[in-house]
Amino acid sequence: MAVRERVYYSMLKIEGTDFSGGIMNNIILASASPRRKDLLKLAGVRFTVLPATGEEQISTDIPWEAVEQLSLQKAQMVAKSHSLEEGTLVIGADTIVVYQGKILGKPKDAEDAVRTLLDLQGNTHQVYTGVTVLKKQECQWIPNTFWECTDVTFYPVSPEEIQAYVETGEPMDKAGSYGIQGTFGIYVKEIRGDYNNVIGLPLGRLLYETKKMGINLRG
Amino acid sequence: MAVRERVYYSMLKIEGTDFSGGIMNNIILASASPRRKDLLKLAGVRFTVLPATGEEQISTDIPWEAVEQLSLQKAQMVAKSHSLEEGTLVIGADTIVVYQGKILGKPKDAEDAVRTLLDLQGNTHQVYTGVTVLKKQECQWIPNTFWECTDVTFYPVSPEEIQAYVETGEPMDKAGSYGIQGTFGIYVKEIRGDYNNVIGLPLGRLLYETKKMGINLRG
Repeated sequence: MAVRERVYYSMLKIEGTDFSGGIMNNIILASASPRRKDLLKLAGVRFTVLPATGEEQISTDIPWEAVEQLSLQKAQMVAKSHSLEEGTLVIGADTIVVYQGKILGKPKDAEDAVRTLLDLQGNTHQVYTGVTVLKKQECQWIPNTFWECTDVTFYPVSPEEIQAYVETGEPMDKAGSYGIQGTFGIYVKEIRGDYNNVIGLPLGRLLYETKKMGINLRG
Repeated sequence: MAVRERVYYSMLKIEGTDFSGGIMNNIILASASPRRKDLLKLAGVRFTVLPATGEEQISTDIPWEAVEQLSLQKAQMVAKSHSLEEGTLVIGADTIVVYQGKILGKPKDAEDAVRTLLDLQGNTHQVYTGVTVLKKQECQWIPNTFWECTDVTFYPVSPEEIQAYVETGEPMDKAGSYGIQGTFGIYVKEIRGDYNNVIGLPLGRLLYETKKMGINLRG
């Protein structure tokens, strides 16, 4: 590996990277999300983090189409901007929260987070995550894109409890202004679907889809 | 507090205990489960762990009745064997896994764990947790007992993957031979109900029920 590349990679937060031999196992996570990284690590996957940079664009307001498009664009950005070996996998993912048909991204500010959580408490909303696995095969990138939806129902939560949660700062980098694995998760009454999908990566589905592609992510 | 009591308590794993003034907030978790302890801590509850000792007995094979009975017995054992102040809350909980109507407890040995997981993979099972909150009021213990059920569906998992999981030792202290928050959780396709209920304590429901009793567990 050239010195220039070595310096570049060392500036990123990289898991399972062996600089003597380049990127190990050729699995790239095209996401800077620490939660997606933790989930892949839980599964025993050895991978490298190369976050997508640049602006994604969506041409739909249908939630599952939107997350599929966004995950594909993230994976493609990383695949195109690095020189990657034959057989490399690039995994892109995008998560959105949908309440009464409206897509909710990350909050603009604390007030926006409070407003969102006042809507979500006592009600059911949907969390969509789209995932794209790109595999480099005969110099081409072959995509496998899929999505999962999980319904999340909250117990009633008081404005004071919501204010206290927003003041922790936890909502600010999260679609829908909460993290289910954090302290707002204590108000969850019920979910229908994959819990990890709400965190940001439908891990079981990802392992299942890659098995179907003949790939053992954990091996 | 007498020296004898101080020595006794110091031998237990205690959270939020202030020996100068006795047990803080008067909330007792009657369970040695580290997972239940972690969930209560996540909710910001200050409590003391006093695990129930002695044999519980069930007089039913109906899952929800069984976990209600067991949680009540655990809470009562602790309430009766300690001298606790007026207003004290004792929380007991019990979790079982049910597959095709059959109650599955903790595995007897590694082979039993493998057999159980071979049954559960590719299928849907139920996780029941019963909870009893006892409140000391006018020298009497007033019970509030409830239960939650969560359906858990696994993707197909190979015998080799199951063997590797059992060899980690993780299944041995867990009802149904797996922990959803551990590495077997990566095979979950879908759940219907409360995720924390599968870990061992329906935290949202517990907070909701105690609010109804006029108690703020987190305060």
